[in-house]
Amino acid sequence: MKKLYTPGSEGRASDLFGHGGDIYRLAEELGIPEKNIIDFSASINPLGISKKVNLEIRKWLKNLHSYPDPEANGLRRTLGEYHNIDPESIICGNGSTELIYLIPRALKIERVLIPAPTFSEYERACKTASYKLQVMSYGLKKEDNFEINPDEFIRALSRFKPFNMAFLCNPNNPTGRLLERKDVLRIAEAARELRCYLVVDEAFIDFCPEDTVIDEVQNNPYLIVLRSMTKFYALSGLRLGYGVFPYHLIETLKKYKEPWTVNSLAQKAAVVALKDKAYRDETFRLMRKEKGFLELSLKRLGIEFSPSEANFYLLRINGRGQIYKMLRMKGILVRDCSNFKGLDGEYIRVAVKSRRHNKLLVEELSGYARCSNSRDT
Amino acid sequence: MKKLYTPGSEGRASDLFGHGGDIYRLAEELGIPEKNIIDFSASINPLGISKKVNLEIRKWLKNLHSYPDPEANGLRRTLGEYHNIDPESIICGNGSTELIYLIPRALKIERVLIPAPTFSEYERACKTASYKLQVMSYGLKKEDNFEINPDEFIRALSRFKPFNMAFLCNPNNPTGRLLERKDVLRIAEAARELRCYLVVDEAFIDFCPEDTVIDEVQNNPYLIVLRSMTKFYALSGLRLGYGVFPYHLIETLKKYKEPWTVNSLAQKAAVVALKDKAYRDETFRLMRKEKGFLELSLKRLGIEFSPSEANFYLLRINGRGQIYKMLRMKGILVRDCSNFKGLDGEYIRVAVKSRRHNKLLVEELSGYARCSNSRDT
Repeated sequence: MKKLYTPGSEGRASDLFGHGGDIYRLAEELGIPEKNIIDFSASINPLGISKKVNLEIRKWLKNLHSYPDPEANGLRRTLGEYHNIDPESIICGNGSTELIYLIPRALKIERVLIPAPTFSEYERACKTASYKLQVMSYGLKKEDNFEINPDEFIRALSRFKPFNMAFLCNPNNPTGRLLERKDVLRIAEAARELRCYLVVDEAFIDFCPEDTVIDEVQNNPYLIVLRSMTKFYALSGLRLGYGVFPYHLIETLKKYKEPWTVNSLAQKAAVVALKDKAYRDETFRLMRKEKGFLELSLKRLGIEFSPSEANFYLLRINGRGQIYKMLRMKGILVRDCSNFKGLDGEYIRVAVKSRRHNKLLVEELSGYARCSNSRDT
Repeated sequence: MKKLYTPGSEGRASDLFGHGGDIYRLAEELGIPEKNIIDFSASINPLGISKKVNLEIRKWLKNLHSYPDPEANGLRRTLGEYHNIDPESIICGNGSTELIYLIPRALKIERVLIPAPTFSEYERACKTASYKLQVMSYGLKKEDNFEINPDEFIRALSRFKPFNMAFLCNPNNPTGRLLERKDVLRIAEAARELRCYLVVDEAFIDFCPEDTVIDEVQNNPYLIVLRSMTKFYALSGLRLGYGVFPYHLIETLKKYKEPWTVNSLAQKAAVVALKDKAYRDETFRLMRKEKGFLELSLKRLGIEFSPSEANFYLLRINGRGQIYKMLRMKGILVRDCSNFKGLDGEYIRVAVKSRRHNKLLVEELSGYARCSNSRDT
């Protein structure tokens, strides 16, 4: 376990760029419209927003001059029904990112355990919350397919000075690896005994919904679950996330929460999205089909990848930098993973997209694999 | 000058409700659709969003699955052109509220001077930034029409222990009183000598644009200007604000800024709104006419109000609580000002709206004034 914190390095401005989805800079570089970029770097449902959501947004445009509901009451009621949980335990955010930043700040966290590789905003949020906050890294191993071993993670939690908080991204970003519900609950139980908050970020769990632990939050005063509607429901441009919290934390979090962070279109869109079962079913169908296609194609090409329960794959490719640049020049954006802690430089992450786009990616990668093979011989 | 800070009172959850614009709760109370509430409590351009903005949003809906540009580069370029300032000095936010919270947190402010009455989020932002942060209040006097006296304000800044920061809302909310550009610059100059940041919140200055000091930021390393597009441009539901900062602060602020806070529709809408001169001209025409109508009507009714350079009026009305409730029952929302520090309980704030709505308000108030007069006799 390596101590990651180095004073002065917290939250560099350039961190803002260290994510997928920045189609804007590539479009500008290439001098083409943003919509022409084929973006595999952000893992978003290729169906785009549902037709019903599109209609709802259009309907609400004439009320856009009104401030958003600061409490998001209508949306929280719908979320409560959807998950069969109490709306009073839910706080909505400008993406789950707002809540990732709010939690360590409001709860005055001092020591945090974060797996590596994982979503980098956990660490940045902790380090900007307080310069005193210590972040420790729990390294996932390539030879284990970057899987978390629950027993080892529990041991890490209890070792040395006690932790106040741990983050678990499930399924994990960028690996796509899923911890089963029973294992998450086992870790949560251990965290409770250690009086350590466990923040389970289920940003991608809509793709494998039976493993959520959202219904267990009120049974464990140290369990927090974060959800996002920017991936499965493609509300990335509008921004919407939510957290489910044990009751005793709600008041403290609201004390520190900024007002009006969730815009009114996001609130209205999310209500309709959650009720759109046909969209969910279509998404599952598409994912099954396209993940099958991509896995088969990658195997044929001999490209190493982690099995994934999410809508993206982590690929291990020699000469990652070169292929990343080559694809960029063609207007294809993949996620260069070289800035993920705990990964060596040879990984890219690609989203599962439509068949047309997936085929295109496979063709590009196969061209590259051929060149690479002929160079090797 | 009264010390406002009392430990434990910082950022109560109920503060979230202490603003205008909460049409949602009233609609629920009355069992009517939100759009049927006539909202004088939030001071928003009665034209609503411009037609061009509406069209632009519809156009962008098919790209809503893409993440927003985290740097808002396109918008910052347009803002730079519009104000004739360097885009690199601009940071966009989820409303100016995001920046009000970011500034004291990022700049590690210790002592702040805030006029009273004014927008309550300055104080809440400071108190949630650090429990050590001391907030002092500069009381504005009713007998001066709640105007700031620049010399007195400068004296207050330099008295006692030094301040690190002061907020000035110009024109002030809820009074509508404007400090002229030359007076703001005089205070800014004094603040510079005292090494005290002066945050000038120009959320309503689009209604009297010649008094902005936005062009002076790079001439004073202690001057910060905040702007909002939720009032004049009616982008309240989408959320958009921006700040102009001396260059030396940009890096520090970006260190602490959360990513993707400005949704993509807000970015696209704002670019079009800023270029829509016809909308601006129509707004000025409407405001001149409707402010004339309201002022005349209020005078006729004998209702006391402060002269206002913004798109709202602060009215002094005996029995404010009763009239507030009576209007609510009719689906008319005004801003009960009893929770503004530095105002006694007898004030309401009303926005300038369309003639139809303004007439309705005047009729309601006149009915009330008649009842009240007949009771008095």
